[in-house]
Amino acid sequence: MNNQSLDWSAIAQALVGIETITDPTQVAKLSTDYYHFSPVLQPLLKDKTGDLVVRPSSIAEILKIAQVCVQHKAPLIVRGSGTGNYGQCIPLQGGLILDLTKMTKINWLKPGLTSVEPGIKLAAFDKQAREIGWEWRMVPSTYRTATIGGFIAGGSGGIGSVTYGQLRDRGNIHALKVVTMEDAPRIVELRGDAIKKVNHNYGTNGIIVELEMPLAPAHPWAEVIVTFGDFMTAAKFGQALGDADGLIKKLVSIFADPIPSYFTALRNHLPPGCHCALVMVAEFCLEPFLELVKQFDGEITYQKAAQEATKGTSLLEFTWNHTTLHARSVDTNLTYLQTLFPADKNLTLLEHMFHHFGEEVMMHLEFLQVQGQTVPAALQVVRYSTEARLKEIIKYHEDQGAFIANPHTYILEDGGSKAIDPLQLEFKKLVDPYGLMNPGKMRAWEALKV
Amino acid sequence: MNNQSLDWSAIAQALVGIETITDPTQVAKLSTDYYHFSPVLQPLLKDKTGDLVVRPSSIAEILKIAQVCVQHKAPLIVRGSGTGNYGQCIPLQGGLILDLTKMTKINWLKPGLTSVEPGIKLAAFDKQAREIGWEWRMVPSTYRTATIGGFIAGGSGGIGSVTYGQLRDRGNIHALKVVTMEDAPRIVELRGDAIKKVNHNYGTNGIIVELEMPLAPAHPWAEVIVTFGDFMTAAKFGQALGDADGLIKKLVSIFADPIPSYFTALRNHLPPGCHCALVMVAEFCLEPFLELVKQFDGEITYQKAAQEATKGTSLLEFTWNHTTLHARSVDTNLTYLQTLFPADKNLTLLEHMFHHFGEEVMMHLEFLQVQGQTVPAALQVVRYSTEARLKEIIKYHEDQGAFIANPHTYILEDGGSKAIDPLQLEFKKLVDPYGLMNPGKMRAWEALKV
Repeated sequence: MNNQSLDWSAIAQALVGIETITDPTQVAKLSTDYYHFSPVLQPLLKDKTGDLVVRPSSIAEILKIAQVCVQHKAPLIVRGSGTGNYGQCIPLQGGLILDLTKMTKINWLKPGLTSVEPGIKLAAFDKQAREIGWEWRMVPSTYRTATIGGFIAGGSGGIGSVTYGQLRDRGNIHALKVVTMEDAPRIVELRGDAIKKVNHNYGTNGIIVELEMPLAPAHPWAEVIVTFGDFMTAAKFGQALGDADGLIKKLVSIFADPIPSYFTALRNHLPPGCHCALVMVAEFCLEPFLELVKQFDGEITYQKAAQEATKGTSLLEFTWNHTTLHARSVDTNLTYLQTLFPADKNLTLLEHMFHHFGEEVMMHLEFLQVQGQTVPAALQVVRYSTEARLKEIIKYHEDQGAFIANPHTYILEDGGSKAIDPLQLEFKKLVDPYGLMNPGKMRAWEALKV
Repeated sequence: MNNQSLDWSAIAQALVGIETITDPTQVAKLSTDYYHFSPVLQPLLKDKTGDLVVRPSSIAEILKIAQVCVQHKAPLIVRGSGTGNYGQCIPLQGGLILDLTKMTKINWLKPGLTSVEPGIKLAAFDKQAREIGWEWRMVPSTYRTATIGGFIAGGSGGIGSVTYGQLRDRGNIHALKVVTMEDAPRIVELRGDAIKKVNHNYGTNGIIVELEMPLAPAHPWAEVIVTFGDFMTAAKFGQALGDADGLIKKLVSIFADPIPSYFTALRNHLPPGCHCALVMVAEFCLEPFLELVKQFDGEITYQKAAQEATKGTSLLEFTWNHTTLHARSVDTNLTYLQTLFPADKNLTLLEHMFHHFGEEVMMHLEFLQVQGQTVPAALQVVRYSTEARLKEIIKYHEDQGAFIANPHTYILEDGGSKAIDPLQLEFKKLVDPYGLMNPGKMRAWEALKV
């Protein structure tokens, strides 16, 4: 289902000199993401495809592409590596797929801060940044393939958020430059709080072409698996580790049985029936960390020194939404939820949910900082039956006071943000007056057309 | 009032080869600390002095000194630079003053961790550690002169605690070696949670001779003064900065008028009647930090880049208990309190106290991490009238739910700790069976003698 009302050969012609892909199989492949994690999104998005893929390698080319799209009133869908899970970059009305994975330049890199192009892969950047002792503050579990631009446009936090909070928190993005979709496209720079106008907007508010991002000291991260006899002890261990100001950590992920059984590559370290924690902690903090493990009667079943952990598969690839990936690779009937529990060191609501749903909603916690407090987010693995039941589960969570960032919708407002900031809508009017950017994703904009 | 029942010439004779000081003026000077901040402690401690100062330069010498003290049943009082404020190292019954300021060796230093001797000055260590990119996690305002051993034995936290919590928190001290006061003195190593047996014990539980301490990345710290029109806005700015996970900081100190007027060296940056924040923030975070300042209608009156801030007087020398020092240099009738307010982002109890006492108890906040939450500690500057009134003020705070670490007592239990951990008492029985170490400071021990 692409956009056949447009003259794609004329568009392609206007872009001569810039790499384009027209082969339908390839275009289809580059029109998709990991929305199939959601059985609700699957039927809605499965036949969506773009008309043309364009792969620019400079801002000048991007300005040209923007101009051509505006001229032809062609939808434009920006993508990085397409590792999103909510159909963020699925073209709903066909259009030009702007693949930014060739925009991989590091403009500058200094202690604490960097300026990069959007298409650089997160892991590739870290490899260079670590040479001067720095790394990203937070990364998703798709770290190896995801791009920084895609992460900003479609993600919210990840490995590292247990220390630094989320991308939306002040200080975690310093500046963004976007190319507008005006009649005469131009570059607009957003700094400070103005970044909100573009962050986590699925590429609806300008094409991000440059990012100034703060960095974190690249500590030697040891990787550890700890198993526990019962889930709530594991959860409370996670909370305590998050709260331990003297222990430097990057990842605190907690899994209820049977989720560990889905981690087939870690089978030797996860005895049947166990509940476990997957942890990244600074190597120089291992000794006091082990005291905390002892306090919670945890058992270490896997421990890799930082040097060793850089080889082979990192534990981070079993956490955040890679947990869902591993679960689905065993049973495609599994899907997931995204929940933020209220700050409560006793984890009362969490415990209630754990018992209430049993194995229908398997607990997977990712601890992160929310406004200065360690809070459990959950990416529960859900045994899917019907959409109605899924809605019921979501409603039960919301009724009890848990916040749900629904991953079973491609509408911006129905996911995490709930409402578009009026500033964002105003900014869209400015930078995308014809509504060409990823059309159909921002309800507030669509409503203007009625 | 020294200890004349002992044969001090025989003791001195037994220590030949180790540097000793017998000149009474010098001994008196090396028997004191900054207890005079407290008008309650002043009359109690003003005539206390030791009999002999000994300045060893090796652990072998310390073992020898311990043995001689045990043999003669001579009290032994360990000291660093004597920058404490509660008479921690004032000899109550005379005795041998063990001055460890010649024990300044860095045994080893590697990323994240170091092993040092107790007498190294905090600033001197940092100078060396920063060459490899690291520094202490937290330091007191007596940073330039205080020793690490004295800080562990008599301090609790300081500049850096807004990120790392306090010394007592797991992970902030890795290991301690102490020399015992047994008949045959020996070295005992404490690691992990066992450190509690010695931490913050005023040198009553063994002579600390080696410390393994975790470090923090040495960021380039910019120093900033922000002024505010009203105190509660300044206080809430402090809370918000503490809670801002994306802003890397080392110091968040808030002062109510008229405290800023006591900072005479900063007069040009502190307009009369202002309330202010003294802040150290990573230079690469300055831009988003300034957005926070804007949000709270703060005005920047002083800003030094990190490079520049290393020259001249650092703002840290106006914070923590140096605030009291500056206040008392203007008016010796001023003293102070030490308060920990409960975690509450609205600062309700704090606001109540601010209004309730007015200028009798002037607000000075130091934000720090307590079990994963940013909490205001207060070192209020108090206009002293009588001891009875001081007790009334303390009682009022305690009755309303604020925790007071009373600085107007030299008894361990009556200050911050409230009760000696039974483990500490057991450890004292083991390492100081004759009760020679800093006698009179630990009530639980004195009670055993009855």
